[in-house]
Amino acid sequence: MTELETALAKIDSNLDSALGRLSALVAIKSISTDPAYANECQRAAEWLADELRGLGFEASVRPTAGRPMVVAKAQAGRTGAPHVLFYGHYDVQPPDPLDLWETPPFEARLRTTPTGKEIVGRGTSDDKGQLMTFVEACRAFRETGALPCDITILFEGEEETGSPSLPAFLAAHRNELKADLALVCDTSMWDRATPAITTMLRGLVLEEVIIRGADRDLHSGMFGGPAINPVHVLALIIADLHDESGRVTLPGFYEGVTELPAEIAEQWRKLPFSGRRFLEEVGLSIPAGETGRSVLEMIWSRPTCDVNGIIGGYTGKGSKTVLPAQASAKFSFRLVGAQDPEKVAASFRAFVKARLPGDCHAEFLSHGASGALQLPFDSPALQRARNALREEWRKDAVLVGSGGSIPIVGAFRRDLGMDTLMIGFALDDDRIHSPNEKYELASFHKGARSWARILASLAEQ
Amino acid sequence: MTELETALAKIDSNLDSALGRLSALVAIKSISTDPAYANECQRAAEWLADELRGLGFEASVRPTAGRPMVVAKAQAGRTGAPHVLFYGHYDVQPPDPLDLWETPPFEARLRTTPTGKEIVGRGTSDDKGQLMTFVEACRAFRETGALPCDITILFEGEEETGSPSLPAFLAAHRNELKADLALVCDTSMWDRATPAITTMLRGLVLEEVIIRGADRDLHSGMFGGPAINPVHVLALIIADLHDESGRVTLPGFYEGVTELPAEIAEQWRKLPFSGRRFLEEVGLSIPAGETGRSVLEMIWSRPTCDVNGIIGGYTGKGSKTVLPAQASAKFSFRLVGAQDPEKVAASFRAFVKARLPGDCHAEFLSHGASGALQLPFDSPALQRARNALREEWRKDAVLVGSGGSIPIVGAFRRDLGMDTLMIGFALDDDRIHSPNEKYELASFHKGARSWARILASLAEQ
Repeated sequence: MTELETALAKIDSNLDSALGRLSALVAIKSISTDPAYANECQRAAEWLADELRGLGFEASVRPTAGRPMVVAKAQAGRTGAPHVLFYGHYDVQPPDPLDLWETPPFEARLRTTPTGKEIVGRGTSDDKGQLMTFVEACRAFRETGALPCDITILFEGEEETGSPSLPAFLAAHRNELKADLALVCDTSMWDRATPAITTMLRGLVLEEVIIRGADRDLHSGMFGGPAINPVHVLALIIADLHDESGRVTLPGFYEGVTELPAEIAEQWRKLPFSGRRFLEEVGLSIPAGETGRSVLEMIWSRPTCDVNGIIGGYTGKGSKTVLPAQASAKFSFRLVGAQDPEKVAASFRAFVKARLPGDCHAEFLSHGASGALQLPFDSPALQRARNALREEWRKDAVLVGSGGSIPIVGAFRRDLGMDTLMIGFALDDDRIHSPNEKYELASFHKGARSWARILASLAEQ
Repeated sequence: MTELETALAKIDSNLDSALGRLSALVAIKSISTDPAYANECQRAAEWLADELRGLGFEASVRPTAGRPMVVAKAQAGRTGAPHVLFYGHYDVQPPDPLDLWETPPFEARLRTTPTGKEIVGRGTSDDKGQLMTFVEACRAFRETGALPCDITILFEGEEETGSPSLPAFLAAHRNELKADLALVCDTSMWDRATPAITTMLRGLVLEEVIIRGADRDLHSGMFGGPAINPVHVLALIIADLHDESGRVTLPGFYEGVTELPAEIAEQWRKLPFSGRRFLEEVGLSIPAGETGRSVLEMIWSRPTCDVNGIIGGYTGKGSKTVLPAQASAKFSFRLVGAQDPEKVAASFRAFVKARLPGDCHAEFLSHGASGALQLPFDSPALQRARNALREEWRKDAVLVGSGGSIPIVGAFRRDLGMDTLMIGFALDDDRIHSPNEKYELASFHKGARSWARILASLAEQ
């Protein structure tokens, strides 16, 4: 047997005890948002550090202004092995509403369903079950030999509250945490049979503009006609931001946007995904946006421009015959590929200024600008992870995008200069943040096996 | 001497005692908005009824749900004389802030300024001084002979609080109040040397539209691109409502809008009025609106479409990456000439519906619809009033429009089937509603003389 095969067999034979360890972690009520549970967060961090020490990691619990971090390090069996940083979070959402739980939320229960067995309990999927798949993979290697890679583990306890301590912690421990590649386990499979790797996260530019005309609200009878109306001016600008085919009209906006590789486009086309059904979930049915682009393509790999909010003039009940002195709107631009967030913001501001009548002026506020993250499709690490997942699941992993941002991935890129492989085994129906959260037993078991395969694959020479 | 000449001489010789009467009325603190002064409003009504009884009117104080009305009637010296209804209001605004008054607000004082004498005190211009010009004209005729017209007088005490009791009162006393013509004194001169008659009041259609898309606010990362954004939809509609020349694009909108008679257009062109200066008062300088139309024309005689308010999505501080589920806006349409308010509202709703994507629906709210009021330029009463004012002021009266609405005039038209001549002698710098309100002594004196001339002129056979 190869070292990998030995480790996989160990994962199989460890499954019962692994479930016991997950149950022990689930039992710790590490709710980060409620200060009453700060001590439970501390306990969870210490439990994880102890666990990792038992596997030969040099592990410590590090205090922050909020909940502590766990940092653990272990060397591969050989020198020159790749170095990976694995990230997960041990904090969980509150279990409320309690009366909707069928079993106590902090007592993990194994339950049989028509599609297999599942582990029910708060945090089983998000993210205790997911991070334990990686820990169990490490255990299997240590109990049968050596780790294939140098491994640093970072567990935080504030993910559910927006990771307030993380940026400062990364900045302060840059050298300690820097690795060749980051692994993040906080994502989902495509479906219960098909693994997924998230390789694209859209970037985000947030701009607000306030357009001012007269120095006060005017009476629409006295001034209606000759006085400029900032709501009209703003509406014209918003109307101009897209052409009839739904493309954004900002000059230079599509610089750095490339078409999908044919292989990926083909993979997405074949996915059993209905754009119509996706929209029907929220009361819509007709895809808007760029003509000729699929819903998946628009969400994962196309840039957008949206108004997030608009306000101006009288907005109370009834009517008020006023010409507003000002109108403002907030815009979000989702970026992909190599679009430059600074250039997009600058182009937007120039676009607005070019459309201001002489009597209006605009004030701009930036609420953030970050570029897209895209793992190159030909990245060797990505290819190795794809191979490993294909071995385990006997199906190709779908390379998915994510419309939203995952801040930790941006921070790894920006502050530590690392790419990230986002691989997780959650399912969309895991009810994370809701009562009766569950994690499939198959996700837990085959997830650990997948990590073992990925670590071995990354270490191949 | 003619009867008119005798009456004019009487007005001259009565001036001092007339000032005493105005002072007595100003001394009554008839503040309608403050229930603590309800008794003072009652006293003002009774004072006026007494005064009119002294002039031979059959006068009574009529209770309402709010402040009382005064209704008084007197016959002309001959049968078959025209019947006019004169309207004014005895209630005043509160005097606050008291510390900015140079003399006590309810003690009328005569003060000499570089441009003449003025009467300072709350209500001297709005509207006690103005209504007393008419009462003094009646007095002069009664003290020297007979009234030239049948006269009904209606004084209300709730004008400053939006006339809540007036519609029901007009409906209940339609037969009693109906006359050949209404006279309303609540308006201004063009300047201190030039009288004005307001012959046009723009109508008003108030519409609100709420456009809904998804059944909840969406995450702009998850849904940005394929999900329709109601703010975009609304912005496109607003942008479409005007063409590049500033004309309103609603189908049929300009039906019933006619060009000004050449004489009036010429009079307006010659007025010493700077559109630029008018706009500079409120921080603007470049006339917007229809190209090729003067500012006065746009305000007085052209229809408009304006957004009074708009709201949708996140409007708090900072950013929120949301796709709004709905967006709404309030619109005011100012109407002129024979534009049909119902047709304009219907055309607007059809215009919006025609621009709704399949996934959006619109809810409409009406906040009112009233047509424009326009006294025909060739109306005999208007010609007689112009002649009378020319005699008194040795200058042609300017026929002005008013961008806003004066509800009482609409009610006279709608409920009593009467046209209204709006003639007043206030000046724009009278500081109505503000500390140190004043009325020019010339306005008071020549105003009374003007009404005497107008009544005589209307009665000419």
